[in-house]
Amino acid sequence: MVYREGRKLCVGFVGYGHRGVAQLSALLSMPDVQVVAVCDFYQDRADCAGAAVAEKSGKKPFVTTDYREILAMPDVEAVVIVTSWQTHARIAVAAMKAGKHVGMEVSGASSLEECWHLVRTAEDTGRTCMMLENCCYGKVEMQILNMVKKGLFGELVHCQGGYQHDLRSEIGRGDKERHYRQDNFISRNGEVYPTHELGPIAKLLDINRGNRMLTLTSMASKAVGLHEWLKVNRPGEALSETRINQADIVTTMIKCANGETICLLHDCSLPRPYSRGGRVQGTKGIWMEDNASMYIEGLSPLSEREWEHGAWEPLANHPEFEHPLWKEYAEFGVRGEHDGMDYLVMRAFIESVQNGTTAPIDVYDTASWMAITCLSEASIAMGSMPVAIPDFTDGEWVRRDPLTPSCYALDDVYEDLYGKE
Amino acid sequence: MVYREGRKLCVGFVGYGHRGVAQLSALLSMPDVQVVAVCDFYQDRADCAGAAVAEKSGKKPFVTTDYREILAMPDVEAVVIVTSWQTHARIAVAAMKAGKHVGMEVSGASSLEECWHLVRTAEDTGRTCMMLENCCYGKVEMQILNMVKKGLFGELVHCQGGYQHDLRSEIGRGDKERHYRQDNFISRNGEVYPTHELGPIAKLLDINRGNRMLTLTSMASKAVGLHEWLKVNRPGEALSETRINQADIVTTMIKCANGETICLLHDCSLPRPYSRGGRVQGTKGIWMEDNASMYIEGLSPLSEREWEHGAWEPLANHPEFEHPLWKEYAEFGVRGEHDGMDYLVMRAFIESVQNGTTAPIDVYDTASWMAITCLSEASIAMGSMPVAIPDFTDGEWVRRDPLTPSCYALDDVYEDLYGKE
Repeated sequence: MVYREGRKLCVGFVGYGHRGVAQLSALLSMPDVQVVAVCDFYQDRADCAGAAVAEKSGKKPFVTTDYREILAMPDVEAVVIVTSWQTHARIAVAAMKAGKHVGMEVSGASSLEECWHLVRTAEDTGRTCMMLENCCYGKVEMQILNMVKKGLFGELVHCQGGYQHDLRSEIGRGDKERHYRQDNFISRNGEVYPTHELGPIAKLLDINRGNRMLTLTSMASKAVGLHEWLKVNRPGEALSETRINQADIVTTMIKCANGETICLLHDCSLPRPYSRGGRVQGTKGIWMEDNASMYIEGLSPLSEREWEHGAWEPLANHPEFEHPLWKEYAEFGVRGEHDGMDYLVMRAFIESVQNGTTAPIDVYDTASWMAITCLSEASIAMGSMPVAIPDFTDGEWVRRDPLTPSCYALDDVYEDLYGKE
Repeated sequence: MVYREGRKLCVGFVGYGHRGVAQLSALLSMPDVQVVAVCDFYQDRADCAGAAVAEKSGKKPFVTTDYREILAMPDVEAVVIVTSWQTHARIAVAAMKAGKHVGMEVSGASSLEECWHLVRTAEDTGRTCMMLENCCYGKVEMQILNMVKKGLFGELVHCQGGYQHDLRSEIGRGDKERHYRQDNFISRNGEVYPTHELGPIAKLLDINRGNRMLTLTSMASKAVGLHEWLKVNRPGEALSETRINQADIVTTMIKCANGETICLLHDCSLPRPYSRGGRVQGTKGIWMEDNASMYIEGLSPLSEREWEHGAWEPLANHPEFEHPLWKEYAEFGVRGEHDGMDYLVMRAFIESVQNGTTAPIDVYDTASWMAITCLSEASIAMGSMPVAIPDFTDGEWVRRDPLTPSCYALDDVYEDLYGKE
């Protein structure tokens, strides 16, 4: 059920950049959530966050530029972290050590140790550490999840996805001192933003619950797109002469314990329409995002050209396969940014804290998804050498139940738990 | 110009399986070609080939089950090889040594030495060795080639393609003893059929003429699709209990000397619509086959959602970018199998022999494209280790002219040579 009114939850909010505006707004739309403290490194942003809370709730929250002040507040039970990529983990660790549950925006890790630090701290403190991967709750992603769990694709074999978003004008903005993505593109070279596509795929493949990611290899193209754009659009600025390390296209292949392969694409500095490039294939069928189509053997039509066998049909032909959560969400009223998925992932975090249930994206998911970034950097630096992906569950993945009876479950128990109400 | 009547060319034809029927038919439709000898390992097929020639030309050709008898015929100037994958190279080498020019069907190599053997023999004998990669002459592939050479995509960065064809019912046929693809799927595991997508991509990237493929890494999924199909469709037959080595999905990443990346997919044992999965990206735009769309900066429309930037538009919106060869071909009359491209590639071979010009797909192209197969097998066997791709030009690629003034040129000299006639 979407939105089950729960006990009042006091939340601290850290990070009020562009993304923070949307996420704070999602929290403020929930009657059972009270944002009692807000923080940003920059005073002006912190003040803006405070004003946003006061305007919406009528209560002025505690406002600070030092997140540790929020962690010291006894009534704060959960912290939502929407800061720069590099700071998520250290703030999350500090928050868990202070006894707070953590909902953390998406990012990739800088080191494996950073991922292990999250895992060990969550284990030691018993706190939740959930990556707020909104795309796990995308309408199409959830329809595919539903179809996979119903067996429509048969045994899964291969999945693809990408973060394919022309960010040249965003990365090329002049306000460098507040722009962490720009810093990352100048200095790093890897799959720096894997989770929008990998999160939903990992849930399809039961990663960390009966399956795991074993190894990956990454390859980087040249880096020319951003530089070419800067020369035209930022003439005379230092940035237009700055060397860009981040490849225009990074391709990453991942092998899973149960034999599935995953192919990821990072594609952010060339002109293109937006796409997460989803593709799921099993022994019974295929779905592709880029033509919004599927072919399920025995269900979809055959091609008129016999040698082609199957024919694509629009996914939209099959509203009967929509995920039950999204059917309820439509009745409840889709809200918030990114076509409604921001609200759902935030609500999943809030209700898991309220009810003390396992988060649908737990610390093992969070750590293993983030680890792809630093591992891809290592692979590229070593000429696309394969590198091992750690088992952050310390072997528990072989017997962890793929069914997690949680609110907003990202598996096939959703209907069993809530569908019959 | 499509079809420039040339001097009479006597051709020997080797291999009359399913593919041979189509290719012989293409040859027999050319008034300046005389098929004087035909061969197949199986007598019944050889006889069929002889009958086909006699019926079409009125002249009964020499018919044999031993191709060496054809190589001994002085009047045979060129040999077309349409046999099983594993036999192409050895027959081609023998043919060149016998002074014949070779047009050879597509395949992947079993060893690098096999590729070098082709190269050294072609160099030593001065004979043509052209892979008849029909997809280089596909209508859409040639439109993309034309657009790339006109600079519409800017500097190229990344290309993708695949051989994505549900072949379960073909591979799972019972007539094992004549079915080389089945043997390959049972025994091998790699990118066994790379050239339909790699050929056109290599031409876009000037491979072996100013650029080259440096290294690759391949990853194999589990192999379950074919086995599952056989259990249902061939119950009780030994084949349904045979272990299949070939992965359902093989993904291969290739790095080029000028920094471009190529991603290939082999996908032949899962249910799906046919697609060669083409994708080309540069600093000015993108094309994708699967949605039949493109986005060229400054030409294509923008998305209504500002953060998405570009919007897809159908490639069909731009007939002005069709390749001039295909415009002429439409007037001449599109003919033969595979939407007309079979005829074009065969004609390209014939006219290059008639005129003594460089073949548009030369022995270096042939060898480097075929080499992907055995290199991908090696990479997979070693856990996706990167492996080096040989430079079959012995360093000449750095100064070989990307413009090859040949008939049916696969570069941008086509219009200069023929467009003004």
